[in-house]
Amino acid sequence: MLQAPVQVLAFDVFGTVVDWHGSITREVTQRYPHVDADAFVRAWRSGYKPAMAKVAGAELGWTRIDDLHRMILEDLLPHFGLSHLGEASRRELNQAWHRLDPWTDVVTGLKRLKSKYILCTLSNGNMSLLTHLSKHGGLPWDCIFSAETFRAYKPDPRTYLGVAEWLDVAPQEVMLVATHQDDLDAARSCGLQTAYIDRPTEWGDPAHKTEPVGSNNTLRAANFLDLADLLCG
Amino acid sequence: MLQAPVQVLAFDVFGTVVDWHGSITREVTQRYPHVDADAFVRAWRSGYKPAMAKVAGAELGWTRIDDLHRMILEDLLPHFGLSHLGEASRRELNQAWHRLDPWTDVVTGLKRLKSKYILCTLSNGNMSLLTHLSKHGGLPWDCIFSAETFRAYKPDPRTYLGVAEWLDVAPQEVMLVATHQDDLDAARSCGLQTAYIDRPTEWGDPAHKTEPVGSNNTLRAANFLDLADLLCG
Repeated sequence: MLQAPVQVLAFDVFGTVVDWHGSITREVTQRYPHVDADAFVRAWRSGYKPAMAKVAGAELGWTRIDDLHRMILEDLLPHFGLSHLGEASRRELNQAWHRLDPWTDVVTGLKRLKSKYILCTLSNGNMSLLTHLSKHGGLPWDCIFSAETFRAYKPDPRTYLGVAEWLDVAPQEVMLVATHQDDLDAARSCGLQTAYIDRPTEWGDPAHKTEPVGSNNTLRAANFLDLADLLCG
Repeated sequence: MLQAPVQVLAFDVFGTVVDWHGSITREVTQRYPHVDADAFVRAWRSGYKPAMAKVAGAELGWTRIDDLHRMILEDLLPHFGLSHLGEASRRELNQAWHRLDPWTDVVTGLKRLKSKYILCTLSNGNMSLLTHLSKHGGLPWDCIFSAETFRAYKPDPRTYLGVAEWLDVAPQEVMLVATHQDDLDAARSCGLQTAYIDRPTEWGDPAHKTEPVGSNNTLRAANFLDLADLLCG
């Protein structure tokens, strides 16, 4: 049940809007059929939070996700028999994160939601990555907010409060939509409303998605069509 | 003739994309029929560059266009017999800048251009204003850049170079599209390509649009349909 009228829906992107596991698995399988693509992409994604933590902890200066993805990739290649890849192949593979497909419910759901709400991203992806994903998937955002906008990664409060401030609304008029409970918890502690989206195959086999779902999200929806049913009546 | 392949079209908004003079004139005429709406809106817009110059010159700290518009409005009201307006009416009138209509060629032209280029704004308008304008007019941007993004107003080089940096392209792969020669000149000095758009009635009577058009713009187009003809072949 809504705590206050919502003006803005701010969407987490990786996993919530786009299927990173499926998209990169398909691409790796096609390029390197001998590689265990499922394990490869899970390892790549698993390096993401530790890498961002290095930025948040000032061990690294401000670093874009593109560069973090590349650093993780460099560590990963020897473990998957891909040490021989040259610079162009490495760069091209890293760009796979700019070509992620949306889940099948996303475009239709966003179009319905857009008639009633301001739709924006709030993602740790950098601006060029998010713009390329939007173009690739035909995602009808009203505007794009990136960690780059605020020079801080979620769950830093500056990101959640930044959306409200820049769109000139109160924090409780913003609802974060995500399939990650830790992201939603951080948003709620800044005063935002929250919607949990089930994406059981985010990591491939549902057994790999282990984070518990909280009980105090404002809404929980199976997908964006369900979210539109809940929010557009 | 293009100097290099263009990846990104960055659009000035006030006057280039939206008809501020016509939109605000209509709104003022409807609300306050005794006011000379044409003179009123020209005076309001004329206060804009001096106000931004105060921010650029550090006489004012960082100030959003919404707040600059409001400061100018406060000075203007007594001259147009509107001193009696209360706070709610003043706020509502100031929000007219969030309800500007696009020129009639804009949506069709942008949709054609979007098939080939990344389309973004590069405007001194603040993020909420630009988002509201996009929603109001159905403008299909890939992303929105505001002076607020870079905390600097055009013609500060950080704005033009910021678009290239954030979208991860070279400056010459960005083309600024504007109906203001000074904006285009500043962009060109940062290495961007430029397209001048004729908007002869930007200030109402064409006699009020007096800035000369330079001869070294990359392109010149009558409107966005003409621009799409030039850029999409």
